[in-house]
Amino acid sequence: MSVPLLEQLVEAFRVLPGVGQKTAQRMAYHVLERGRDGGRRLAAVLGEAVEKIGHCERCRDFSETPLCPTCASVSRDAHLLCAVESPADRLAIEQATGYRGLYFVLQGRLSPLDGVGPRELGLHLLGERLAEGEVQELIIATNPTVEGEATAHYLAQLARQHGVRPSRPAHGLPLGGELEYVDRGTLSHAFGSRGEMA
Amino acid sequence: MSVPLLEQLVEAFRVLPGVGQKTAQRMAYHVLERGRDGGRRLAAVLGEAVEKIGHCERCRDFSETPLCPTCASVSRDAHLLCAVESPADRLAIEQATGYRGLYFVLQGRLSPLDGVGPRELGLHLLGERLAEGEVQELIIATNPTVEGEATAHYLAQLARQHGVRPSRPAHGLPLGGELEYVDRGTLSHAFGSRGEMA
Repeated sequence: MSVPLLEQLVEAFRVLPGVGQKTAQRMAYHVLERGRDGGRRLAAVLGEAVEKIGHCERCRDFSETPLCPTCASVSRDAHLLCAVESPADRLAIEQATGYRGLYFVLQGRLSPLDGVGPRELGLHLLGERLAEGEVQELIIATNPTVEGEATAHYLAQLARQHGVRPSRPAHGLPLGGELEYVDRGTLSHAFGSRGEMA
Repeated sequence: MSVPLLEQLVEAFRVLPGVGQKTAQRMAYHVLERGRDGGRRLAAVLGEAVEKIGHCERCRDFSETPLCPTCASVSRDAHLLCAVESPADRLAIEQATGYRGLYFVLQGRLSPLDGVGPRELGLHLLGERLAEGEVQELIIATNPTVEGEATAHYLAQLARQHGVRPSRPAHGLPLGGELEYVDRGTLSHAFGSRGEMA
């Protein structure tokens, strides 16, 4: 006998991040019990998305069109370019800040042990972009992890080679966070790079 | 301009239980970055499942066929019938116990305030089933909540009307649980219904 459709569905849900057997079961039952219309829609949109969404040829972010809406926009400031590790990082910046420049999505970070070098991150594309001369400042918004920092240093060098000013978002205590609960590394860094009060 | 496919996808994922905006985003990005094949498969199976999976006409569990494999099986003991609230409960019993009888899935519990009466739970079907005379014991495995208990009492009455013996899984301390952390209701119940040691 073939595998029942319900079991196949539970198994298929496990492709989602953070979804184990139990959650997958709950999702399958939920969709069948209370969310058939939503399930139908999810199936359709998901099927279309995996086929149609590719990468923007300029910033490497996800895009349905060869050039993503941000890169194609004439109202963005082309003198500013912000390098981020992932599309999710780009979205976070876009939603939280008033940044009006453009982006470059690395889709990863330098990690030689995992075989991720400059080529995999599309840094040759970034180099060509910087060589065009329009970009004046490269905001390097990689994550403050060991690999993110290494990537940031590499990008800063690349920027300088092309006469572009590299910058980095400030690191320090998060707003609204209590000193007592801030991790040691952040606290030590914030203490070391304290600034004079205005 | 139409809504970008990526946004539609994030929105569509929110139909799943416990999935908010942030998790839906993570799911969408994950599928596009690392799980396109899985995503394609999920879309296909989900689309097929919401169309093809209905309810077994005998036990009301989910089934692709008019009669589910369990009800159709000749190797199950038709003298035993176990009433559960949901397909997930049925699955939990099936996986954890060696139960070889049949099931009846209520797809809910009595809750007059929400408009869920005996008819919505298919209790007329259950009544007909018990009237057939084959069932000798009705194991009432509704959840030990207020509504579950009310449903259990109703089912027990129904069983007795048809000369069927109602029974209920034992309630008490969970195995491996520590007394200190067991909730008061359970502890009090377990204490009150203590049994002599063999």
